[in-house]
Amino acid sequence: MRRLSNAGENTFCYKQIQFVEDKQEFSRFPTKTGRRSLSRSISQSSTDSYGSAASYTDSSDDETSPRDKTQLNSKGTSDFCVKNIKQAEFGRREIEIAEQDMSALISLRKRAQGEKPLAGAKIVGCTHITAQTAVLIETLVALGAQCRWTACNIYSTQNEVAAALSEIGVAVFAWKGESEDDFWWCIDKCVNMEGWQPNMILDDGGDLTHWVYKKYPNVFKKIRGIVEESVTGVHRLYQLSKAGKLCVPAMNVNDSVTKQKFDNLYCCRESILDGLKRTTDVMFGGKQVVVCGYGEVGKGCTAALKAMGSIVYVTEIDPICALQACMDGFRVVKLNEVIRQVDVIITCTGNKNVVTRDQLDRMKNGSIVCNMGHSNTEIDVASLRTPELTWERVRSQVDHVIWPDGKRVILLAEGRLLNLSCSTVPTFVLSITATTQALALIELYNAPEGRYKQDVYLLPKKMDEYVASLHLPTFDAHLTELSDEQAKYLGLNKNGPFKPNYYRYKHASKIP
Amino acid sequence: MRRLSNAGENTFCYKQIQFVEDKQEFSRFPTKTGRRSLSRSISQSSTDSYGSAASYTDSSDDETSPRDKTQLNSKGTSDFCVKNIKQAEFGRREIEIAEQDMSALISLRKRAQGEKPLAGAKIVGCTHITAQTAVLIETLVALGAQCRWTACNIYSTQNEVAAALSEIGVAVFAWKGESEDDFWWCIDKCVNMEGWQPNMILDDGGDLTHWVYKKYPNVFKKIRGIVEESVTGVHRLYQLSKAGKLCVPAMNVNDSVTKQKFDNLYCCRESILDGLKRTTDVMFGGKQVVVCGYGEVGKGCTAALKAMGSIVYVTEIDPICALQACMDGFRVVKLNEVIRQVDVIITCTGNKNVVTRDQLDRMKNGSIVCNMGHSNTEIDVASLRTPELTWERVRSQVDHVIWPDGKRVILLAEGRLLNLSCSTVPTFVLSITATTQALALIELYNAPEGRYKQDVYLLPKKMDEYVASLHLPTFDAHLTELSDEQAKYLGLNKNGPFKPNYYRYKHASKIP
Amino acid sequence: MRRLSNAGENTFCYKQIQFVEDKQEFSRFPTKTGRRSLSRSISQSSTDSYGSAASYTDSSDDETSPRDKTQLNSKGTSDFCVKNIKQAEFGRREIEIAEQDMSALISLRKRAQGEKPLAGAKIVGCTHITAQTAVLIETLVALGAQCRWTACNIYSTQNEVAAALSEIGVAVFAWKGESEDDFWWCIDKCVNMEGWQPNMILDDGGDLTHWVYKKYPNVFKKIRGIVEESVTGVHRLYQLSKAGKLCVPAMNVNDSVTKQKFDNLYCCRESILDGLKRTTDVMFGGKQVVVCGYGEVGKGCTAALKAMGSIVYVTEIDPICALQACMDGFRVVKLNEVIRQVDVIITCTGNKNVVTRDQLDRMKNGSIVCNMGHSNTEIDVASLRTPELTWERVRSQVDHVIWPDGKRVILLAEGRLLNLSCSTVPTFVLSITATTQALALIELYNAPEGRYKQDVYLLPKKMDEYVASLHLPTFDAHLTELSDEQAKYLGLNKNGPFKPNYYRYKHASKIP
Amino acid sequence: MRRLSNAGENTFCYKQIQFVEDKQEFSRFPTKTGRRSLSRSISQSSTDSYGSAASYTDSSDDETSPRDKTQLNSKGTSDFCVKNIKQAEFGRREIEIAEQDMSALISLRKRAQGEKPLAGAKIVGCTHITAQTAVLIETLVALGAQCRWTACNIYSTQNEVAAALSEIGVAVFAWKGESEDDFWWCIDKCVNMEGWQPNMILDDGGDLTHWVYKKYPNVFKKIRGIVEESVTGVHRLYQLSKAGKLCVPAMNVNDSVTKQKFDNLYCCRESILDGLKRTTDVMFGGKQVVVCGYGEVGKGCTAALKAMGSIVYVTEIDPICALQACMDGFRVVKLNEVIRQVDVIITCTGNKNVVTRDQLDRMKNGSIVCNMGHSNTEIDVASLRTPELTWERVRSQVDHVIWPDGKRVILLAEGRLLNLSCSTVPTFVLSITATTQALALIELYNAPEGRYKQDVYLLPKKMDEYVASLHLPTFDAHLTELSDEQAKYLGLNKNGPFKPNYYRYKHASKIP
Repeated sequence: MRRLSNAGENTFCYKQIQFVEDKQEFSRFPTKTGRRSLSRSISQSSTDSYGSAASYTDSSDDETSPRDKTQLNSKGTSDFCVKNIKQAEFGRREIEIAEQDMSALISLRKRAQGEKPLAGAKIVGCTHITAQTAVLIETLVALGAQCRWTACNIYSTQNEVAAALSEIGVAVFAWKGESEDDFWWCIDKCVNMEGWQPNMILDDGGDLTHWVYKKYPNVFKKIRGIVEESVTGVHRLYQLSKAGKLCVPAMNVNDSVTKQKFDNLYCCRESILDGLKRTTDVMFGGKQVVVCGYGEVGKGCTAALKAMGSIVYVTEIDPICALQACMDGFRVVKLNEVIRQVDVIITCTGNKNVVTRDQLDRMKNGSIVCNMGHSNTEIDVASLRTPELTWERVRSQVDHVIWPDGKRVILLAEGRLLNLSCSTVPTFVLSITATTQALALIELYNAPEGRYKQDVYLLPKKMDEYVASLHLPTFDAHLTELSDEQAKYLGLNKNGPFKPNYYRYKHASKIP
Repeated sequence: MRRLSNAGENTFCYKQIQFVEDKQEFSRFPTKTGRRSLSRSISQSSTDSYGSAASYTDSSDDETSPRDKTQLNSKGTSDFCVKNIKQAEFGRREIEIAEQDMSALISLRKRAQGEKPLAGAKIVGCTHITAQTAVLIETLVALGAQCRWTACNIYSTQNEVAAALSEIGVAVFAWKGESEDDFWWCIDKCVNMEGWQPNMILDDGGDLTHWVYKKYPNVFKKIRGIVEESVTGVHRLYQLSKAGKLCVPAMNVNDSVTKQKFDNLYCCRESILDGLKRTTDVMFGGKQVVVCGYGEVGKGCTAALKAMGSIVYVTEIDPICALQACMDGFRVVKLNEVIRQVDVIITCTGNKNVVTRDQLDRMKNGSIVCNMGHSNTEIDVASLRTPELTWERVRSQVDHVIWPDGKRVILLAEGRLLNLSCSTVPTFVLSITATTQALALIELYNAPEGRYKQDVYLLPKKMDEYVASLHLPTFDAHLTELSDEQAKYLGLNKNGPFKPNYYRYKHASKIP
Repeated sequence: MRRLSNAGENTFCYKQIQFVEDKQEFSRFPTKTGRRSLSRSISQSSTDSYGSAASYTDSSDDETSPRDKTQLNSKGTSDFCVKNIKQAEFGRREIEIAEQDMSALISLRKRAQGEKPLAGAKIVGCTHITAQTAVLIETLVALGAQCRWTACNIYSTQNEVAAALSEIGVAVFAWKGESEDDFWWCIDKCVNMEGWQPNMILDDGGDLTHWVYKKYPNVFKKIRGIVEESVTGVHRLYQLSKAGKLCVPAMNVNDSVTKQKFDNLYCCRESILDGLKRTTDVMFGGKQVVVCGYGEVGKGCTAALKAMGSIVYVTEIDPICALQACMDGFRVVKLNEVIRQVDVIITCTGNKNVVTRDQLDRMKNGSIVCNMGHSNTEIDVASLRTPELTWERVRSQVDHVIWPDGKRVILLAEGRLLNLSCSTVPTFVLSITATTQALALIELYNAPEGRYKQDVYLLPKKMDEYVASLHLPTFDAHLTELSDEQAKYLGLNKNGPFKPNYYRYKHASKIP
Repeated sequence: MRRLSNAGENTFCYKQIQFVEDKQEFSRFPTKTGRRSLSRSISQSSTDSYGSAASYTDSSDDETSPRDKTQLNSKGTSDFCVKNIKQAEFGRREIEIAEQDMSALISLRKRAQGEKPLAGAKIVGCTHITAQTAVLIETLVALGAQCRWTACNIYSTQNEVAAALSEIGVAVFAWKGESEDDFWWCIDKCVNMEGWQPNMILDDGGDLTHWVYKKYPNVFKKIRGIVEESVTGVHRLYQLSKAGKLCVPAMNVNDSVTKQKFDNLYCCRESILDGLKRTTDVMFGGKQVVVCGYGEVGKGCTAALKAMGSIVYVTEIDPICALQACMDGFRVVKLNEVIRQVDVIITCTGNKNVVTRDQLDRMKNGSIVCNMGHSNTEIDVASLRTPELTWERVRSQVDHVIWPDGKRVILLAEGRLLNLSCSTVPTFVLSITATTQALALIELYNAPEGRYKQDVYLLPKKMDEYVASLHLPTFDAHLTELSDEQAKYLGLNKNGPFKPNYYRYKHASKIP
């Protein structure tokens, strides 16, 4: 049975964007029924509003489907399918800019370039195709791998990046605005290549894995492992494993400590401010805010708002989290106690219907309600779509819901994740994810026979620590080394791991 | 001689926007030579990116000059000149939304509506014409005043707001994108009206006052006072006063305590984060930042960044401010000590050439430099416009300056004020300014003979406190009242003022 | 092998006091070789300096050994051995004051008083005997238990509290200043009582358990379980378990989540300030401090000092902790990089020789060095006991170590734990421990056959949550309840547990 | 009329200790009627509890009055009167330790030693005689002055320090525990010396000045100036000035910016935590606290408590301060709104009866009430001395006031200043005061004829800045210097002053 999460926690953050303009519900994809996350790792609003890349792409008025075009890169190869290979140079610049904030991956590239730990690896990948992903892919290539790549989302491809990758010989099949049919066609083109059979899978959402299971089960004979990034994909893998159908080792990189801390605590600490400011220009000082849920996401949000001078209340179901909130200086209340007085409600629970219509009815004029938790279930937005209420779209991602008496409640992102819809994910965080993926691929590809069985694994603690250590130079941080004597005293290896293998992000536990 | 400011302080914040797209330098206005501030109170970038208002306005493709049109409002009046009177309804909505965050002004309106303290007042005003100003103007009207209004800046008018004001009978002469000739024509239309002579002036920048001095000196015989909002305008008034040419009382509302605290400390605390995030999506955690200047602006910036996990250094010239920085937990350094290691430089000094080309040369790849202080002199941007450096505009307000070795320094807003160029000013802050202006007008209009002479005055302490008290309900804050016994013990009036008249924003002192 | 801890963590906090005046090394107790902790839960210095209780006790100049006295309580019973039964009334007042801050335990007492879950329980206990422990013991009695009690430390007994307990009929055998022989005599008197055989053990350090194993192994036939509080005792139990010699279930209450969070993060956040201030009156603002280790203890110390305006550096061996320090705004350095500039060094590692003589040689004049980690090994104090250095005791717990050139380094508590030596543990924290112990006893005593085997267990998650919930009313905190629908959605029971059983204090893991 | 202060402010901090054990009311000193402060600059509790100095002194059981003894220092001089000249060596060590934290004064000593700016100065001083004062006196001597010194308080002399000063030839007349007669005898001995007439006065409280006015008015003919440190003394000087009786220039050093910021904001930020912890061992996390008054003292207290995890409410009478509290994240309430729920009440108003009996009646069991403001009037302690309430002294400075129903309210320091009664003032703060005094003496002594008239002056801004700059090296802080160009741009002298002369601590204003 699905054990999703305890209240007050959220591990789903970056896998759940629904695109605003996207009126065609993605749920028509039959294999994705019940799926929570059609995601990409950078927010739509951001690229739309600011990204030079996006604006470049937008200005492209070529309406021909890439599938109907014949394109050659400058070396004369045509084993790819992207929007416009001529955008390669522009994409290259985007990749170079991304590289500046992904020095960990570049550093890994340099350190491992000599030994080529991925020599012979044939990786088929299905992820968002962004400048940051490109840095990952080019790192894999530098370490010896051959790569074929497709997009895990029909909207998230940066066309010029796809072009730049194709230009240097990576077989990319992806463009922004694919149809469903395109989507599967692209996946198929990646896998089904004469004379080339993948031995590693890097997946984000499980669609690629699903396709191979369904269409090319024999391919698994050669596959050394699957690396999966998303909650949804991990969930599917555990289900396969439970059903005894997982026929290769799989690595769950979603739940590595480093990634989770950044996805939840550190990122949300910044993105709550960013998301609220970009959408509403609200002044934080003196505002009364209630944060529902005091897990990592709630902790990040409350810390930021308190620091900016807001008066913050917390709701919790779990007494241990509630006690932490007390010690951190927040009054723990029931939502109904403060609903009439607060200026802002932020949900961070992972639960559903945390804010009900009844409560929305009692909010005061001009108050803001938004969701930092998961999916779009936390606020009962559906209950607001009734005839007596008027919706007024005042900005992108900002609706005024107007009561008959004129009261306005400001609903952000229609109850979807604020941090994904209305702020951006720093490249640094994407660097942590990408580095973790790269190390997981290296580990699975090089693991001696028998280390991994047909099961789902978490990244070994030592590699999690390695990801962290690769990111320390960004902060000019200098690690202390244990002396021999100290290592002996502590019973540790001088090079780690410093924490036991089962010390990991606590919610790894929630997985069945 | 101009005594501008002491280092580490900035009182000019909201009067100094230069508009990005505005290639025509505003300095062609001869009377404004040396003027620091061509301002409006909400940032360009904000309205452009998000404001539904702005997009409405932008979509107007009517190229006819308003001066060449004949327009009537629904009551058949034509004593106004705006872009398009038909936008009135849309402007009305904007005004209503602004009213939600300006409850202090609404409250003043309600409290004073009965006694009509401005009955008989004929106010001519020259300010930015925004939804927030409209709330002010309509308050003045509600209190009994007749108003004629024009814009203090050729770009800052919200056309639909001007239309809405004209619709209800306020004589507005302003539109977005005036020519210089239009600008003075509009001012003249406000003042030079047969059968109507102003007895109060509300000015922002001093252009209106200047025009009256120059063209209609006799008008001053009837004028009871001038209320001036901007640093520039206040400076001009002090010069007039010094030269013995000021022939009516003037009120300097720029330096009231409440306004200054919000303009500098509280606003900058939020806008530094907002401005950096919107432009660069930088992650604050772990970033090394140097803040030049530890006045109110510097205090706001450092507090915010420290709270978000940045490591912050401070530079200072004043030992008292430096000691405060120490006690607040910041290392006080010379810029050169940290220039090679910091990720971000923020200037908050009010000084010039605080960051020199020599120092920019030594900044590391990918570092950010921006200005929160005043004007555009703090960073020696001119020194970067040399042939060996390449400028690359990557987003609106964001340039990569590229050194021959490939090093990129990210320059924000070309060295102009980040908070004005790249973030927004909350309506709440504008409410404080507008309320202060309204009270100053009431005070000057109703002052008994002799209370004010032909000089420049600061707002009486008691009225400053009244502005503050009007804003407390926003925070559901409840003041304690002195008992008779306590008031006697303290030697205070129970209703204030609670601080002596000469306790005011310290930099009032800078005025000659 | 002993796997003590990973760097940057400390779970030993409250079990490691060495008493300053105690020149007789406790290691002569053969069974305690290698023992880290001869502890009591409130600090010596505190009671000495302030406690009225202590001063009362001190004024007692009766030199007769309690073993040589015959005392009767007011009911005529003599089954106890304390310093002076006449102090009972004074002790009662101390207990009443303690009850004020232990409302969770009182609340448990009231809730469970009807059903008497400990009816029939015969508990023999060996803990510090303080007012707080008395509240625990009286709770056990109220729930139906019979209790015999002795002290786990020869110095930590509050004599008047022992008297008060004896007065109401608890068989207490303990006094402050026992000899080693007294110590074991008292334990023996507790266990070896004709006509009374214990069926539960509550131990703190494992001495009582050891004695029963050694002298009265048959007693274990009736014992339903052991509840152990200390790191040392828990370690011994795990060793017994490993050796197959543990013949009853044991509950490790040291590693429950709630207790650990308070012992480490929340307590240390406050006690670092308290300990430094009481000993040195140092001003925190502007001080440069290096904190070695960024586990929970280090996180608490750095947060407090940063908030008070200190400039804080962190050293770490573990890259994950180091990255957290970066994101929280601390520069991560090697100790040698900052050793010459810092004003204060605080060790929080759990490691040995973290500060070496070589480093102490380079510290600047007037700098402070202290230990918040564990034991007394973190600072190499032994290396300072050389002829060329002069030690000057300037206050209790404060030594100036003087170099030949006159440089003074201020060493606190001779390198023992500052928080235990020089500050106090709030009663509220002790309440959490005591409540946890009570619940563990109830659980073990009432567990159905087979739930617990001959092994060491952690407190079930649900009971950990119950401890937390009992402490929420202190903060007037109100938990939110899941609706049926929400509980179903989350796959949780409405009453918890809200976290999986294996979500617990991470360092539970370090135990072999 | 006495204009004491506006609410929410306290500038009296360090001049108002009443000594706990001191049952003899000091008000019998007729000249001190209405005096608020019988003070010393370090707290009684501190020295009592910890100071080795104090214990040394206490152990002296010599009961002979110093006036009846004949003592010679090692050079054979007898022009002094102290408790025991043999304690000189011990006092020297105390002075040396104090010097470590007073490097600013030592630095001033070194810089000015060559030019001897006090050559020819004959200073008579009346201050607390502590190790810190000794560093000041010895600095004055090093700069060329001759000094005669007496104590401004009958209890605050550190006998061993007085001995050490006498040993090196300073004529000290002071000991701990003087009678009233002794007090005036000592003053007289300082002033009335054949062949030696003072030309400078350094006073703390005005008693010395008063004595000279009364007994030796002719002395004023030679006096170049008075430097006064205390609120009381400054008040007296202003009264003299107003009455036209001030016959020499006087310098009010109490209101210099640097001193005031440290006395109020920075010191209170630390001492509120220290004072509460030392007296009650309270845990700050989660506590609900109301702080009455949001001036500098209130700002310091609230910041510290918020940082430690308390939930803080603020009461205010002044809307400007109230608005600041809102923006800083505190709910502004009336005391009665929260009186039943708070755990701690802290008064910081400078007002009287801020907490009334009626309110104390409604406080909850176990709550704490204390005063950080001024004097002992803020809490209506007198109202608690009624028969139905029981007072129980549980520790030094801690009383439980017990209501008939058993409710206990914990009253600290009997409503006197917590920071002075129950915590200590860091030497660093005393260094700022002492340096300011030294510079004021130098300024007055060397001022050209006519610069100062027979009036009360504030320290010139430039010297205030100089005091600050002398303290920067303690923090290894490096000031930035203006370039010529920048100085010209700002209209400032490169060496300061950087702030106008009338920018000073705002409460300078309160002086009549």
